[in-house]
Amino acid sequence: MEETQIGVVLTGAGAVGFALLNVVERSFTSLRVVAVGDSRGFVVNHPGFSWPQVHEILQHKASGNTITSWDLADGTERAEALLPLVEDLAHAESKVFGNYIVVDCTSSQATAPALLRAKQCGFGVVMANKLPLSLTTEVYNNLVFDAAGTRSPLVQYEATVGAGLPVVNTLKRIVASRDRIISVQGSFSGTIGYVLAEMNGGKTFSEALNAAHALGITEPDPRDDLSGADVARKMVILARELGFETETTSVEIEKLLPDAFLTLPVPVFLSKISELDPAAAVNHNASRLAYLGTITSTGALSIALEIVPRTSVFANTSSTENAMEVLTQWFPEPLVLRGTGAGIHSTAAALAADLAQIAAAFARC
Amino acid sequence: MEETQIGVVLTGAGAVGFALLNVVERSFTSLRVVAVGDSRGFVVNHPGFSWPQVHEILQHKASGNTITSWDLADGTERAEALLPLVEDLAHAESKVFGNYIVVDCTSSQATAPALLRAKQCGFGVVMANKLPLSLTTEVYNNLVFDAAGTRSPLVQYEATVGAGLPVVNTLKRIVASRDRIISVQGSFSGTIGYVLAEMNGGKTFSEALNAAHALGITEPDPRDDLSGADVARKMVILARELGFETETTSVEIEKLLPDAFLTLPVPVFLSKISELDPAAAVNHNASRLAYLGTITSTGALSIALEIVPRTSVFANTSSTENAMEVLTQWFPEPLVLRGTGAGIHSTAAALAADLAQIAAAFARC
Repeated sequence: MEETQIGVVLTGAGAVGFALLNVVERSFTSLRVVAVGDSRGFVVNHPGFSWPQVHEILQHKASGNTITSWDLADGTERAEALLPLVEDLAHAESKVFGNYIVVDCTSSQATAPALLRAKQCGFGVVMANKLPLSLTTEVYNNLVFDAAGTRSPLVQYEATVGAGLPVVNTLKRIVASRDRIISVQGSFSGTIGYVLAEMNGGKTFSEALNAAHALGITEPDPRDDLSGADVARKMVILARELGFETETTSVEIEKLLPDAFLTLPVPVFLSKISELDPAAAVNHNASRLAYLGTITSTGALSIALEIVPRTSVFANTSSTENAMEVLTQWFPEPLVLRGTGAGIHSTAAALAADLAQIAAAFARC
Repeated sequence: MEETQIGVVLTGAGAVGFALLNVVERSFTSLRVVAVGDSRGFVVNHPGFSWPQVHEILQHKASGNTITSWDLADGTERAEALLPLVEDLAHAESKVFGNYIVVDCTSSQATAPALLRAKQCGFGVVMANKLPLSLTTEVYNNLVFDAAGTRSPLVQYEATVGAGLPVVNTLKRIVASRDRIISVQGSFSGTIGYVLAEMNGGKTFSEALNAAHALGITEPDPRDDLSGADVARKMVILARELGFETETTSVEIEKLLPDAFLTLPVPVFLSKISELDPAAAVNHNASRLAYLGTITSTGALSIALEIVPRTSVFANTSSTENAMEVLTQWFPEPLVLRGTGAGIHSTAAALAADLAQIAAAFARC
């Protein structure tokens, strides 16, 4: 059977996007790359870029240039932003392919309107970007559900929580089975995971945090990670999957830092964190530290630094490992999922599986 | 939006089928039960049984009667077997609903031709029954793939391995992502899991096996379980999911019993098993017993009793817990799935999620 070609738009051309395009080139014969862009704009080729061109563009970007400064070849053009690009692709004259999939690898909430428009146009949407789905319930609902109120098979976002671990899809199946959730608990933080893994290995809090900062694992201001905002977004997405109406503002977050540390300039903050070491110390013979998000049976969300026994699935996770434990009426022994839940390849794996699912849905209907 | 009604045919009306119908009654407003049957035959109602009728039939069966001896109400009839029933439902005059789903909760390979015919008719097929999918590669391929060579969304069988644990769907996503499998290892046995859990708790092999036999957890001849044939079927299904062409005859099974024990009459066998206790003993301070199936990167399949460290995910699983560990190119820290992988509710949960998936696929196309 002849494969129907599908056009792909990649926004957010960082390491994950590059890894994904390598998989697409090798294995997805039905996909053609139509546009690649970053926050400054896109380069577009309506019949699809050749793979040598895609490599040239990615090389250009990887060398420190913006995507849009790439020297346009014949038949390629520029687009300023995702929304007009989507409108353009949906327009009959420029619509070379029957279907398009927009892949969002940015970490910006600015893509939300364009993703909604893409979905309205009947395009597929794949997200590694957590921001759109953790905005208001209304944005989430409009992105995730179709007109009939069922989850659209054309919008996929497994990479938003736990990267390649099938966290979202496992919860989707539990919900579909009409089982009753008792609790969901998860360890889903990259940076905090690194710090705690080092502490579980014997380092003090300040040693671990300084090492993470020096390695570039944290944000320039490590407090952006330590705030728990990233984990809060993931927990909101999972709670919404379970059918709870909730917002990021209603997540109860245990602060990892005393208030006095929140307003210091970064260098002062870094020079003072060893003061926090005694409070952060833990008895390593019996227990481990884990930064856990919890969803209760009523949909209450909280995030806290918890001391877990060494036998817990949350003990001894490495910096790139995530874990989730789900208790339900029919799973009285918790359903446990654990593995590489961060990093380029695990994230690209989730995106690739989502792309495949949407391509299959297009092929069928 | 008006829901399109779908007719359900349940074959194998045991505890799992009953649990599933309870979920359907409570939560699946688009499904009507059209036929219920066991190995002796079916009772059929073309416009769909009322829920009180379904309860009457199940009650009748649970009281020790065959399904077909149920006193037929107005408009109900009998069918001898699944294949003619499927033909009848596919026939225009008796086709009340636009779509049908056949749910196979038997443990018989005799259903395979009828399931293939149901799929040909465009019906959905949901299996808890492992037998059809572990027959020849040809039967598997005809059941699982559609004409275009892609996996049909209308044939689902998560319950065949690990009951409600999303074992099959997790492997499907890994395959779809084009990741490369390094190894899959799993603990998927109910009866052997019970015996090993008791041994891990300190009992001898013979004490554990005798207890399981007395409780009715084993087959009347416990060697039917100890043969590993059940686990072999599950491993073949998983290997086929990964794209390997394999048959149950090519699984290398470590026998749990010496040859001399295989041909004894059951009572003699049971009286002699304490002779095996010394060989089966394990040092519980450092290690645990697990009966593990393994798939290598080349698709070689083996099943063996292994001594695992206490830190292994396969240590300390309870009798109803299953576990799987997948190593891939992109998951160098293994992807681990663990939880209730046996029992009525976990199995019914998998069937219900599969039903929901097929109903959604019908609704879209």
